[in-house]
Amino acid sequence: MTDVATNMRLKLPIICFILEIILIILFGVLVQYNEETDAKEWHKKNHSDYENDFYYRYPSFQDVHVMIFIGFGFLMTFLQRYGFSSVGFNFLIAAFSLQWATLMQGFFHGMHGGKIHIGVESMINADFCTGSVLISFGAVLGKTSPVQLLVMALFEVTLFAVNEFILLTLLGTRDAGGSMTIHTFGAYFGLMVTRILYRPNLDKSKHRNSSVYHSDLFAMIGTIYLWMFWPSFNSAITAHGDDQHRTAMNTYYSLAACTLSTYGMSALTAHDGKLDMVHIQNAALAGGVAAGTAGEMMLTPYGSMIVGFLAGIISVLGFKYLSPILEEKLKIQDTCGVHNLHGMPGILGAIVGAVTAAVATADVYGDGMKDVFPDVASGKVDASYQGGIQAASLAVTLGIALLGGLIVGFILKLPVFGAPSDTICYEDNIYWEVSLTVQVFQFVPGNVLRKYYDIMIL
Amino acid sequence: MTDVATNMRLKLPIICFILEIILIILFGVLVQYNEETDAKEWHKKNHSDYENDFYYRYPSFQDVHVMIFIGFGFLMTFLQRYGFSSVGFNFLIAAFSLQWATLMQGFFHGMHGGKIHIGVESMINADFCTGSVLISFGAVLGKTSPVQLLVMALFEVTLFAVNEFILLTLLGTRDAGGSMTIHTFGAYFGLMVTRILYRPNLDKSKHRNSSVYHSDLFAMIGTIYLWMFWPSFNSAITAHGDDQHRTAMNTYYSLAACTLSTYGMSALTAHDGKLDMVHIQNAALAGGVAAGTAGEMMLTPYGSMIVGFLAGIISVLGFKYLSPILEEKLKIQDTCGVHNLHGMPGILGAIVGAVTAAVATADVYGDGMKDVFPDVASGKVDASYQGGIQAASLAVTLGIALLGGLIVGFILKLPVFGAPSDTICYEDNIYWEVSLTVQVFQFVPGNVLRKYYDIMIL
Amino acid sequence: MTDVATNMRLKLPIICFILEIILIILFGVLVQYNEETDAKEWHKKNHSDYENDFYYRYPSFQDVHVMIFIGFGFLMTFLQRYGFSSVGFNFLIAAFSLQWATLMQGFFHGMHGGKIHIGVESMINADFCTGSVLISFGAVLGKTSPVQLLVMALFEVTLFAVNEFILLTLLGTRDAGGSMTIHTFGAYFGLMVTRILYRPNLDKSKHRNSSVYHSDLFAMIGTIYLWMFWPSFNSAITAHGDDQHRTAMNTYYSLAACTLSTYGMSALTAHDGKLDMVHIQNAALAGGVAAGTAGEMMLTPYGSMIVGFLAGIISVLGFKYLSPILEEKLKIQDTCGVHNLHGMPGILGAIVGAVTAAVATADVYGDGMKDVFPDVASGKVDASYQGGIQAASLAVTLGIALLGGLIVGFILKLPVFGAPSDTICYEDNIYWEVSLTVQVFQFVPGNVLRKYYDIMIL
Repeated sequence: MTDVATNMRLKLPIICFILEIILIILFGVLVQYNEETDAKEWHKKNHSDYENDFYYRYPSFQDVHVMIFIGFGFLMTFLQRYGFSSVGFNFLIAAFSLQWATLMQGFFHGMHGGKIHIGVESMINADFCTGSVLISFGAVLGKTSPVQLLVMALFEVTLFAVNEFILLTLLGTRDAGGSMTIHTFGAYFGLMVTRILYRPNLDKSKHRNSSVYHSDLFAMIGTIYLWMFWPSFNSAITAHGDDQHRTAMNTYYSLAACTLSTYGMSALTAHDGKLDMVHIQNAALAGGVAAGTAGEMMLTPYGSMIVGFLAGIISVLGFKYLSPILEEKLKIQDTCGVHNLHGMPGILGAIVGAVTAAVATADVYGDGMKDVFPDVASGKVDASYQGGIQAASLAVTLGIALLGGLIVGFILKLPVFGAPSDTICYEDNIYWEVSLTVQVFQFVPGNVLRKYYDIMIL
Repeated sequence: MTDVATNMRLKLPIICFILEIILIILFGVLVQYNEETDAKEWHKKNHSDYENDFYYRYPSFQDVHVMIFIGFGFLMTFLQRYGFSSVGFNFLIAAFSLQWATLMQGFFHGMHGGKIHIGVESMINADFCTGSVLISFGAVLGKTSPVQLLVMALFEVTLFAVNEFILLTLLGTRDAGGSMTIHTFGAYFGLMVTRILYRPNLDKSKHRNSSVYHSDLFAMIGTIYLWMFWPSFNSAITAHGDDQHRTAMNTYYSLAACTLSTYGMSALTAHDGKLDMVHIQNAALAGGVAAGTAGEMMLTPYGSMIVGFLAGIISVLGFKYLSPILEEKLKIQDTCGVHNLHGMPGILGAIVGAVTAAVATADVYGDGMKDVFPDVASGKVDASYQGGIQAASLAVTLGIALLGGLIVGFILKLPVFGAPSDTICYEDNIYWEVSLTVQVFQFVPGNVLRKYYDIMIL
Repeated sequence: MTDVATNMRLKLPIICFILEIILIILFGVLVQYNEETDAKEWHKKNHSDYENDFYYRYPSFQDVHVMIFIGFGFLMTFLQRYGFSSVGFNFLIAAFSLQWATLMQGFFHGMHGGKIHIGVESMINADFCTGSVLISFGAVLGKTSPVQLLVMALFEVTLFAVNEFILLTLLGTRDAGGSMTIHTFGAYFGLMVTRILYRPNLDKSKHRNSSVYHSDLFAMIGTIYLWMFWPSFNSAITAHGDDQHRTAMNTYYSLAACTLSTYGMSALTAHDGKLDMVHIQNAALAGGVAAGTAGEMMLTPYGSMIVGFLAGIISVLGFKYLSPILEEKLKIQDTCGVHNLHGMPGILGAIVGAVTAAVATADVYGDGMKDVFPDVASGKVDASYQGGIQAASLAVTLGIALLGGLIVGFILKLPVFGAPSDTICYEDNIYWEVSLTVQVFQFVPGNVLRKYYDIMIL
């Protein structure tokens, strides 16, 4: 199962080394410790060490970090012969993306006298941007080489930073948990990439594009970690105090409600009432995506539950009825169904955020308005205008994601990147040394097993 | 393996949707953000955002959350053909229970002007209550439909809140880590339910009621997470300061000592000196259960170690000698052996708590007495009386758990809930779409393996 | 697969019970709550409960705890038939070591009026010391009985505490993340032990000394957790404020850079360009080891990335070219390749630390100098002298590790400890009840599978 095209002997080292050396040089030139991480700067001021933002962001950061590396990584191990690539390429492109995102996001929002200042908040933002890349990875899972993925990450991180800059800085959009910037962007970017990379003969690899018993259990590790830590994700970069607290709690209830609607819908849409692991692994998370924008707002607990409840329903219906249509009619081969987990729930989250913003009142928010809607609190805009901005931001995000995905998709078609052929998609053995030792059973007449031993396939 | 009775096509959606819609309505009517999560209320007062309780409870909450969803969920994946149900039903009933517990616990302890006020502390308490339901789930694992489990959770959460109210509010019992309220209650409730649901012909499913190699490794993920985060569990809702700190440390040493006695006892009680995974997966955790009540007290580090040491011994002996007796004589089919992990160690923890409370002195506790024993510090009761209250609370808990389990067990016998028949217990395939693709080996004479391929069983 | 020598029926209970009883007695005599965990002492002073160090160390502690029990435990499950022992013995010796380390480290650094005072910081240090033992476990993995491992832990913890005392207290060495005290010490101690325990006929167990597909996925759980939480590890006991913040961030970037160089080198050194799971599981972590000493210093982000980049390269080259030489020429059978993950990267980390210390200036550190280099800030030594001390500390560590490993290796050769024979190394079945149920396939002519069922091997 080796051929010249997919041989990574030179391609992968070249791109890894070049990218990392460029990163090191740019970090050397541009990046500095911020006031909270620099020994001299921190000690210049008169404050307690306990006031360092490390203590108020780092636990959230670590939860987000687990979502990025364990959550996304293991969620994608559901494929029977693609576990190494799922966890391993997730690991590789995330390690690259978080470095590149530090530069791109710093360039757009964080320059101080020509330097990018970094600390735990920039680390969270870098992980967030990485999450968007991993969502796109889910759409093309099994059909791309690690070199293609690194190239995709290079461009996607850049475009993510542009879109984020337009929304958060230019427009004043609120999107703490990234329903738009992370989920909608990552999903539609990835869907467009996979559309451009359409493989008409992908059914030659169809037998590997499914799960086996234990691969589904590995995937559940990813699901459960994403589910548990989503409250930390949505609250990681909101304002301190009530905002972080409320965001985490809204997300908690949104996810819980989403889980019940997911189980209900999964049984309802199955011809024999059996639950489908694909739904549980994915749709039960849609409540986190859909609470990404409005989670920090005064959504109320029952409002959060309604949002989660709807997200679960939409997501299961997407898996069951929309994905086959997208594949047949629109030629979008979406391996992990990111449209159902991140795409539609992301749009739902954006809409919920726009509505919740539009109805915000000083009576409900009090002096907390300045944390959640600073432009409304300062009188720069009114609430309904903020709602309009939120809605416009969704359109901007969709536009940049689709256009970006279109361009990057064509770049990824270059044969030099070593994509697998249609017959060997979803297969670890192309890019990984896979132990082909299997257990062989010795039969004797009457089907009584006597002993078993291992044999190496040559 | 489908039949009409166990078909969940309508039953599961109906119960999921009805329960969730009721929850949303009740949340809408009754539940409000508390002072720490409400934008207006939080900003009314003059305090730093860093004083929000989020920063002093949320990391503990997340550790508890991991125990509930990963810990309990994966601990039960030891069964060879029940991994989807173990993780998946754990997920479903926990997502329901934490919402319902918010209402029930709020109704009994947290009403403010007719409203339930919620924040991170109520989230921890909701997760705690959920833990109790999952303990009961362990007793009936493999023999119940998801609909039965939701019905059980509905009643058990309610009774849990009643018992908790009697103990913590009416009697002034101290039980921060829930040796009584969570472990003893959950275990004896579940044992009574499984007694009522006794299946005389369960041995027809005996071949599936065991582990395979990889299922035991998945279960170890659950075990280790429970073990690591138990210090966070026991300390999650104690008073701030020395109390949380001490509770976590006591639990840490109790668990370490328990692990050594568990390994020792497991080898000692095996006929050939081999360790038994069931003991390691379960008994090594008994030290956490047994430190649930006294962990916040001045138990001393070596006192904690003695408690853990004894808990490990009792638990292994329970698995080895008591469980078979319970099954044969008392007809209690306890799938996960919750009596050995939660039942007896919970009672041990309650007794240790009663004794430690009874001997508490102002000389040892100083001004810290008001955090640990407020009624003793205020002079309302003396220490020995507090000890008596603790002991009485164990009896109350056992009474409510056994009576509650009796009633709920009979409710669960209703055939409409879709329990599996005796021949197909411990089997995912009843309620889940399970991939039946298996690897087939092609043999040629001489037992040399040539190639293998996958085939779908029809 | 049972024989008298490896039967643990009496040996394991005896050592577990004796060790734990000794621990309990010594804790009873020597160990007390410190000011932060004692109810009376804490309430004597006038401070807020929120100032308790629990809130500023415990989240880091829990991340370290996960690395010790999940990280190390699952990293070693890569062996196809040694998963129970990897996780299970890791669990046992860690539970023992953290108790024994509390005493040994307390004896050397923490005596207050004849008593050892403990709290979250001593818990982190105990876990750190445990990590060193687990590194040595990696070198001898598959070739030792649990009794041997407990004996090894007993001595290694003691020597670790001696070495740590010489470095941190006598010499004033800085080594917050333990490049020297933990990684270099643990690796060379273990390598010497495995050298003394050299088995010339180990190739009789060669067929089990390899991975299978799912065992490699379990190992990736360990890898990813170690990778994610290494920033918490290196920063867990540094000074509060900028120091913890900076250390975590330096480690984050070092690891990210290391991951890219690891992937590049793994593909480059493979004859067909395929990635090797052994490299990914191990070498990608070398960036954390190598940032263990200098991580708290003003290493700069790009400096951290250079260190990580080099560590990844060195580590992969070690696995590919050095390990076979060590085994053939020096008779060092290093099961997990700890020399490549902890040995060489540890030395690299020590050197980087010495150089970074030697060039430290007041201009860069400002008033923060007193946190990072207290002896330099106080004028006791100058920076270049501090650098010299750092370098000398590496030599001391290597000396104590090698000499200690030599002695302990000979102790472990005593036949009473029940080591497995050469033919049954890397095999769980010696020490664990292993389910030998396997799936048997029924064949019919034409290779159509009809049904499968489970059978128990007798």
